[in-house]
Amino acid sequence: MTEATESNAVLIGKKPIMNYVLACITFFHGGAKEVSIKARGRAISRAIDVAEVIRHRFLPDAKIKSISIGTDQLLPQEEGNSPTNVSTINITLTR
Amino acid sequence: MTEATESNAVLIGKKPIMNYVLACITFFHGGAKEVSIKARGRAISRAIDVAEVIRHRFLPDAKIKSISIGTDQLLPQEEGNSPTNVSTINITLTR
Repeated sequence: MTEATESNAVLIGKKPIMNYVLACITFFHGGAKEVSIKARGRAISRAIDVAEVIRHRFLPDAKIKSISIGTDQLLPQEEGNSPTNVSTINITLTR
Repeated sequence: MTEATESNAVLIGKKPIMNYVLACITFFHGGAKEVSIKARGRAISRAIDVAEVIRHRFLPDAKIKSISIGTDQLLPQEEGNSPTNVSTINITLTR
């Protein structure tokens, strides 16, 4: 992964979708060629919402460069519990 | 999209993840070369869970052929309401 990709990453949480849309658009308006939208677990569907809103409503010239999925292992909060797995997604948009 | 892809599709709903994992594995054991995992809205994160469990636990030789995202427009249930958009994902696994 290039340095540019890593530095323009938006991690999706529980805030309104438009907050993340605005964060991505700000990166692009600042001259970024690529922006990565990252999410884990239940936030994954929101990551796709963000990518779709950007593509269809704000930046029609933005394209999906790549979509990758993976698994993160979460260590247990209390000792004795086993680690749990959580799915991840990384959507890279480019202009 | 090829005919084979369309005929081996698993649509993710609200059942336990292992139900969908089993459905995909059954397709592969029946000779399918490709299986598509499709989901909309909040079920999207579960679609990725299904793909990850298949790849890491049951079929280590299964690979992700493609991941695509999109938007479906849902017509309103009552007249006068505007249509709403829902994000979609399509993960195609291949062996």
